[in-house]
Amino acid sequence: MLSRSSLRPLTVQASKTRILPSSFVRIQASRAFGGYGISTAANRTAICPSPNRGVLAFTSSIASNPTGLRLASISRHFSSTSPAADSNNMAPVETQKYDYIVLGGGSGGSGSGRRAAGWYGAKTLIVESGRSGGTCVNVGCVPKKMTWNFASITEAIEAGRHYGYELPHDVNVNYNHFKKLRDATIERLNGIYERNWGREGIDLVHGRAKFVEPKTIEVAFNDGTTARYTAPHILIATGGRPSIPDIKGAEHGITSDGFFEIEELPPKVAVVGAGYIAVELAGVMGTVGVETHMFIRGETFLRKFDPMIQKTMTERYEAVGIHVHKKHPGIKEVQLLRDGKGKDKLLRLINNDGSEVEVNELLWAIGRVPEVEDLHLNVPGVKLDEKGHITVDEYQNSNVDGIYAIGDVTGQAELTPVAIAAGRQLGNRLFGGEQFNTSKLSYDNIPTVVFSHPEVGTVGLTEPEARQRFGDENVKVYHTRFGAMYYDVFPAEEKKKNPTEFKLVVAGPEEKVVGLHILGLGVGEMLQGFGVAVKMGATKKDFDSCVAIHPTSSEELVTLR
Amino acid sequence: MLSRSSLRPLTVQASKTRILPSSFVRIQASRAFGGYGISTAANRTAICPSPNRGVLAFTSSIASNPTGLRLASISRHFSSTSPAADSNNMAPVETQKYDYIVLGGGSGGSGSGRRAAGWYGAKTLIVESGRSGGTCVNVGCVPKKMTWNFASITEAIEAGRHYGYELPHDVNVNYNHFKKLRDATIERLNGIYERNWGREGIDLVHGRAKFVEPKTIEVAFNDGTTARYTAPHILIATGGRPSIPDIKGAEHGITSDGFFEIEELPPKVAVVGAGYIAVELAGVMGTVGVETHMFIRGETFLRKFDPMIQKTMTERYEAVGIHVHKKHPGIKEVQLLRDGKGKDKLLRLINNDGSEVEVNELLWAIGRVPEVEDLHLNVPGVKLDEKGHITVDEYQNSNVDGIYAIGDVTGQAELTPVAIAAGRQLGNRLFGGEQFNTSKLSYDNIPTVVFSHPEVGTVGLTEPEARQRFGDENVKVYHTRFGAMYYDVFPAEEKKKNPTEFKLVVAGPEEKVVGLHILGLGVGEMLQGFGVAVKMGATKKDFDSCVAIHPTSSEELVTLR
Repeated sequence: MLSRSSLRPLTVQASKTRILPSSFVRIQASRAFGGYGISTAANRTAICPSPNRGVLAFTSSIASNPTGLRLASISRHFSSTSPAADSNNMAPVETQKYDYIVLGGGSGGSGSGRRAAGWYGAKTLIVESGRSGGTCVNVGCVPKKMTWNFASITEAIEAGRHYGYELPHDVNVNYNHFKKLRDATIERLNGIYERNWGREGIDLVHGRAKFVEPKTIEVAFNDGTTARYTAPHILIATGGRPSIPDIKGAEHGITSDGFFEIEELPPKVAVVGAGYIAVELAGVMGTVGVETHMFIRGETFLRKFDPMIQKTMTERYEAVGIHVHKKHPGIKEVQLLRDGKGKDKLLRLINNDGSEVEVNELLWAIGRVPEVEDLHLNVPGVKLDEKGHITVDEYQNSNVDGIYAIGDVTGQAELTPVAIAAGRQLGNRLFGGEQFNTSKLSYDNIPTVVFSHPEVGTVGLTEPEARQRFGDENVKVYHTRFGAMYYDVFPAEEKKKNPTEFKLVVAGPEEKVVGLHILGLGVGEMLQGFGVAVKMGATKKDFDSCVAIHPTSSEELVTLR
Repeated sequence: MLSRSSLRPLTVQASKTRILPSSFVRIQASRAFGGYGISTAANRTAICPSPNRGVLAFTSSIASNPTGLRLASISRHFSSTSPAADSNNMAPVETQKYDYIVLGGGSGGSGSGRRAAGWYGAKTLIVESGRSGGTCVNVGCVPKKMTWNFASITEAIEAGRHYGYELPHDVNVNYNHFKKLRDATIERLNGIYERNWGREGIDLVHGRAKFVEPKTIEVAFNDGTTARYTAPHILIATGGRPSIPDIKGAEHGITSDGFFEIEELPPKVAVVGAGYIAVELAGVMGTVGVETHMFIRGETFLRKFDPMIQKTMTERYEAVGIHVHKKHPGIKEVQLLRDGKGKDKLLRLINNDGSEVEVNELLWAIGRVPEVEDLHLNVPGVKLDEKGHITVDEYQNSNVDGIYAIGDVTGQAELTPVAIAAGRQLGNRLFGGEQFNTSKLSYDNIPTVVFSHPEVGTVGLTEPEARQRFGDENVKVYHTRFGAMYYDVFPAEEKKKNPTEFKLVVAGPEEKVVGLHILGLGVGEMLQGFGVAVKMGATKKDFDSCVAIHPTSSEELVTLR
């Protein structure tokens, strides 16, 4: 058995990489896998003290894979595992025992594993089939936000002309240069994840897991070997993946995973979907000059958001030239007319009403499905809901004792920090002792931001939800819409295209804040503090008691009338 | 007497302007006057419903003046006063009676007057000697923030190169184009202030006021005429003005007032001072390529802020090329070598140690003094403190019954929203009836932002203040420093120049948040919500209970360890 105490450092070999037993080395990632992940370091510099405990460094080589992770042969130095590794004891054994097995090294799994191992010393194994950090780091939050930042430069250049900067109108943009830098950031984050695990004594294997007994998993490595692991507590944090519709030629389009592989922007793109991923990706493309067509079924997008957000954001996208095709009949067939990158790719979309359109790229953003198929959940008998998500209670327990699930695979508030927070609470509950027996994440008043153009922020109930819950007579709405000072130098008609709009939904005689919905320049960094206040139970009076900060947009939230 | 009920609209004349009696028309502004002012509309579009009650519109022409408002002959349409104006009754009368006289039409005076008149129907007069809106609108917050926005374009262009935008390195910037747009915004705000007053039935006179009896003021108009007004409640909200030192040739330099008149940026500037105005104006100039020299007496600037802010911001300014001359001996003489605009002006500064330096402009940012000299405060016997500020109690009462003061003239937290909030509370207390008898502004936990590069935000106590108040053993500090994701595409050494840094100071076993100090990209819009939470009495646990918003910088404030 591979136990932490028996591990010792290997002899140093060339370039500080190590040849480890097959269960640890040269894994071919076969598939994107993992929950919307986070590094707590994702928005910050990679300041990772080099581990000075005994550490194994080796190379794992990731090749292309079916769902789109085509970052071929990334050579990564990976500081694995535990204080005192010893290769002599690392020969595969039948079933290795852990305290805690985490399936999926995305943000949720990482957060839970680190809490269990780092805080409470639980002997923990993470199994990851793709790149460490999961969706968030590799094909989610991180590259998305970086691309949003990239697009913000175009907006600043356009603003700059109004501010008196004599900027050329034909600025050449080297998207591929940016894309490479973005990839490098992601690789750095992959490494940070793995080093963090290593520092906290977590073992990591790259491979695909399936249940072979109720509490035992078998991991298949890319070299064809397998290994078995068992633990009294197994967390499923495998996340999800983007859906593709079941129509002819659908595979000629891409999903958000594929979007982050693009090296050359398409001149003309169709984005199918009305959720936040569609809106974010259409937003960056539209902003940087891609002729962007959004196909939506209804009259507005962001349908789960407050009607103010839906309406204003849809209008705003249209005002800046994104083609929003409302009541779109849907696509019945996709034909690949020409394969290639950027302008060289050409697709014909045939709609259900017979109309056709040619585009250089088609992006499916129609939803995500949980990663459960390969896990053989029938072996332990873990129950799924009708959409395939693992059913859990408020403590993240599945129906099977000792098997838990967090993050996107549960379908609960599919957000990185939610998975992390739920994972940490679970770690506390399982390994933190008596005082954490009832630890769980509160799913109320979770603030979230959409990195659209401009950003959207929301916490709590939409106005219709509040009216339904509390009754019209008990709900009051404060609302303001204005043009931020940044746009004061724009011609009036241009300024009008850039609204900032806030809605505060309050309930009861004490005017407790039950919903906050904001959009406009800068709201991405604006929401968190208000989120704290709302979670604390803030009333309108609490908002108004804070002196305004002038001149900001945020001050309008404490001076609403 | 000019009473509201006797006013009627005049006959329409050419271009909808009106000739009004001398007390109301063609005032020559003689001096900048008024507190750091605000429009609640300052950061928003000027959406001002055209008043559909009887309104007087007339032109007031503002010429150049000693302290620097040289916006010569601005022709403004000014919707003054009250529902039913009648010119027949507008001949000057001996002493006109009001319920409330407000000296100074800056943000504080405006806020108080509007509360008194608009909410409670008090017959209110505002006396303004300069441009409506006071310091904030004309030579403070508004043009400052707009200039900060202007400079942010330079930063985006520099970032853009790292993001793959092929931007020329010799972008020509037409500062004067921007300056004209900024002036136009200010004029629009001047008009909004006056229209708001008009809508709420407030009378406005442009002139200089002095006390002639304890409750009577005389206003001198620029045509040499005067008028007298009396009220049982008189508010002094005259604000302050920048100081100039008493040295030979000091007048060849400019102050922040003069900075906003500059039509062409100087190639090389010296900024004297270490307060936030010095840091903000040096910041914008340094950012847009002016060779900027800051002369400070100590080792750091922003000396009233937390040491973390002082240290990091001073280092940051130096890192990006601003010359910070620490322990500067001070200037003993300024010689005007050549007069002109921008590069054509040349000054020689002779320092107290005999050293000399030549610059194209010298900006004094050494402090502000209250505007009290011309008020003849000896007549009512209003007491001043040793710096000349009007001494007030927590209710804004001066030592003289019926005379109050708010805003910069009191030296209390010299911030626009503070003056507004104090003014509104005073309006409530004086005219709102019994239930407002104890209304006052709480001066605790006022959040504020410095629009430096990057922005700085602060609320509550600095770490040394907290340690002094609560004792070292009861204070704990949470701290983080990182590079925001925006800079991930920058070369490492460039990224390092752009830190984000947060400090949370908590006290007691419950870890109550008593101080929050933040700097970095986006903190300007980040602070307000946390300000609400801190004002509500948030603990560290309250911060941590809110789910993080990923990927943002603000999330680091709810995940501090």
